[in-house]
Amino acid sequence: MSALGPPIIVAANRGPVSFERDEKGELVARRGAGGLATALIGALQEARGIWVAAAKSGGDREVAAGSEGGRIDMHAYGATYGLRYLDIPPEIYDGYYNGISNGVLWFVHHYLWDTPRTPSFGEGTERSWAGYVAVNRMFAQALAEEGDRTRSEPAYLVQDYHLAMVPRFLRELRPQALIAHFSHTPIAGLTYLRTLPGKIREGVLRGMLGADVLGFHSQMWAENFLMSARSLSGVRADLARSRITVEGREVMVRIQPISVDAGPMRAAAATQEVRDRQHELNRWRGNNRLILRVDRLELTKNIARGFQAYELLLKRRPDWRGRVRFLALLSPSRMDLAEYRTYTEECLAEAERVNRELGEEDWQPVEVRVKDDYASVIAAYGLYDVLFVNPVFDGMNLVAMEGPLLNRRGVLVLSRNAGAYWRLGRHALAVNPFDLREMADALETALEMPQAERARRARGLSRLVLTNPPQRWVGRQIEDLERVRRRRASAQTS
Amino acid sequence: MSALGPPIIVAANRGPVSFERDEKGELVARRGAGGLATALIGALQEARGIWVAAAKSGGDREVAAGSEGGRIDMHAYGATYGLRYLDIPPEIYDGYYNGISNGVLWFVHHYLWDTPRTPSFGEGTERSWAGYVAVNRMFAQALAEEGDRTRSEPAYLVQDYHLAMVPRFLRELRPQALIAHFSHTPIAGLTYLRTLPGKIREGVLRGMLGADVLGFHSQMWAENFLMSARSLSGVRADLARSRITVEGREVMVRIQPISVDAGPMRAAAATQEVRDRQHELNRWRGNNRLILRVDRLELTKNIARGFQAYELLLKRRPDWRGRVRFLALLSPSRMDLAEYRTYTEECLAEAERVNRELGEEDWQPVEVRVKDDYASVIAAYGLYDVLFVNPVFDGMNLVAMEGPLLNRRGVLVLSRNAGAYWRLGRHALAVNPFDLREMADALETALEMPQAERARRARGLSRLVLTNPPQRWVGRQIEDLERVRRRRASAQTS
Repeated sequence: MSALGPPIIVAANRGPVSFERDEKGELVARRGAGGLATALIGALQEARGIWVAAAKSGGDREVAAGSEGGRIDMHAYGATYGLRYLDIPPEIYDGYYNGISNGVLWFVHHYLWDTPRTPSFGEGTERSWAGYVAVNRMFAQALAEEGDRTRSEPAYLVQDYHLAMVPRFLRELRPQALIAHFSHTPIAGLTYLRTLPGKIREGVLRGMLGADVLGFHSQMWAENFLMSARSLSGVRADLARSRITVEGREVMVRIQPISVDAGPMRAAAATQEVRDRQHELNRWRGNNRLILRVDRLELTKNIARGFQAYELLLKRRPDWRGRVRFLALLSPSRMDLAEYRTYTEECLAEAERVNRELGEEDWQPVEVRVKDDYASVIAAYGLYDVLFVNPVFDGMNLVAMEGPLLNRRGVLVLSRNAGAYWRLGRHALAVNPFDLREMADALETALEMPQAERARRARGLSRLVLTNPPQRWVGRQIEDLERVRRRRASAQTS
Repeated sequence: MSALGPPIIVAANRGPVSFERDEKGELVARRGAGGLATALIGALQEARGIWVAAAKSGGDREVAAGSEGGRIDMHAYGATYGLRYLDIPPEIYDGYYNGISNGVLWFVHHYLWDTPRTPSFGEGTERSWAGYVAVNRMFAQALAEEGDRTRSEPAYLVQDYHLAMVPRFLRELRPQALIAHFSHTPIAGLTYLRTLPGKIREGVLRGMLGADVLGFHSQMWAENFLMSARSLSGVRADLARSRITVEGREVMVRIQPISVDAGPMRAAAATQEVRDRQHELNRWRGNNRLILRVDRLELTKNIARGFQAYELLLKRRPDWRGRVRFLALLSPSRMDLAEYRTYTEECLAEAERVNRELGEEDWQPVEVRVKDDYASVIAAYGLYDVLFVNPVFDGMNLVAMEGPLLNRRGVLVLSRNAGAYWRLGRHALAVNPFDLREMADALETALEMPQAERARRARGLSRLVLTNPPQRWVGRQIEDLERVRRRRASAQTS
């Protein structure tokens, strides 16, 4: 794709950078991690496109306030794309972000309810939902305005569950818009979606159906969406062709797994900081084999059962005591939600219990480090014998891809309920994340796997990740929209 | 259907009667309640068939031990059908019944997991599963033996999630058997079923696929089964035709909602005992309107949120305080499972809290009675202004049908996630059971509904129940099997 390609406009809750004041008091742009931002920025740079996001930090708001309509020329920061921050009133943002996006949609799509007790929707939900609708309208409005400024109809790339209603609202403003929406989460099945108030369920589903192309990380999530859409009146879904017909329009449902960008990770791995961490970690591990997990402290990540499975292994196979250690690198997440604080305490208590019950004077089975520490993560990726990725449900899971890029002999133990399983499963040891026995078996198999098989699997994993760079993930979405553009143009001329 | 119809053999975990010693020390057969037993006994009586069940009580075991192979001639008890009790060793029965049936399958089909924490499958699950398989094999063996004793190939009617593997095991023993399996629970969607260990998920799904006809109470449960079956290798599912092809056989998927039997209920309502209870209840309610719920103390029944919705109504509309009372008739259930004891405490605490916070000297908003008390239930059915049926998920829900048979002016507030909703929804006030606002709205609307509309809806409900007697539910299953018999016969002669 060259700069002569179609204009691109990205919409995502979070911007590609966040502005903060540095020690000298100057505003600097900090890049977030993650393949998503990398891939989208790459495409935007080439197309000289624009990214629309919600202002998050005080610095974001400051930058937005000092510019026209929140538009920031990123040339000042060495980039060729534009950035527009929406300055959303805090009480509306709270309902949209904490209330609905992370408090309702995240929970439902990851099957996180304790149904006899949660959820309970009340007056607060109603207010939050109004905020969600309002923010989605603000995004749609900004996207429409940006579309007016491009030389031809742009390709809109709308990201994730925060912005599920944007496609529909944008379609109302620009009936001919070319809109792709991508879901980075799982998608709950039809029955489970019935936990949502009808207004929210229909709002989200019909909102997404405003797009021309809907992308998902795995077939399971795509099929769940198709079956749910099929239940709406006036909507026809063709499972075999992965097409939905609504209001005379056709919506393509596509499976487009994202991947991670090898370059920056390998560059980071070569830094002195990471080498120092590796040195420290190597001293710490001594002669022990290393089981590693890297996760946000997130309800979906299945951290406590991970420790329990490891405990089961050590009880069954006492000969592994004193010969293996489990390192959990956990970063705090959503600590403003009570459920997350409770879950964090539970996970830490579980690790402590295992150490108390099985630890010996000179050997502790588990080490938990709670910190946002990218250098240690990159360092640990190079060292693991087993990478343990066992989420209860996960849209994709990028840790399962990052690790193998930096490790040529470690074994991946991977949940069958992560989107990554559909892509990487054949080179991993697959587990049911609710089955302690199966996870303990897999850890044991991984620890005892012959060198040649370990290397073969690790090669297979890194090859799969490398042959599917994040640029390709963006590229396929843009190609799909180009197909829509051509179809629409030929329909108009014929 | 006459006695010249096909022989019928029923398999269900629970028998149609249970034997107990009365005051005089004599063994008597006690009938269980419920439309299922009524319907099946009716069909068995006509066909002089046999019912195979697990011995539950000491009396059951005693009767079984005193007879050949556990076969009991029910003529001695005034019936024309046979009964065969399987005497299952307690430790095997415990794994089959508490471990897998009620501890795993019930939970998964009703979406009851708190996924960050439950389930955790371990060594115990493995042992329980061995018990489940063993008991299902015992049932299949007994059914095959009974089939050898009938004059022609019998129609096998296998009931519910306890016996999900019976169709397959029976098919192995009798390839030409005519087998219907009926699920009285919801059926979880494909993604949620992935919480189960693969062996259990596949065991249950492929087990059921041994049948010729699979019956469900609503389209949602049937579709969930079709989609799950479709994911198995070697299985094709045709959603539009509701057919599954497996191992060269065709399996029909049918929606056959059960109903309740009006006769015995109306007879009970006419007894002096029930009249006495009504008298007592009428004194208790005074001039208050009456909201009624009747449920087992069951995780799926949504009892606590019911009190909370009522509380929300009383807070919004203080003018209803002192003018309405909520009567909850709850019967203890599965008190050997810790989850049920905890839930019971939570529900009672919630009722007490509402009484404490909103009660007045001469008026308590909620009355909870925990007791197995059929006479009070029948009495209360005749008295309610609002019948509140709000399960989180429910295969069918018979309370929603029983009430309207005995009440000509009460309003039904009904969960959209109960199978009964698909049948009765148009005459009920439908609610999302997780939405306190919507439930409070519905209670308010129900309390204030004009007399004429109340009567019209109540008539509509009782008419629907009456036109679909439980005999019809059995009859349709037998007809489906007869169709299979004819198709098989013509395939053999052609």
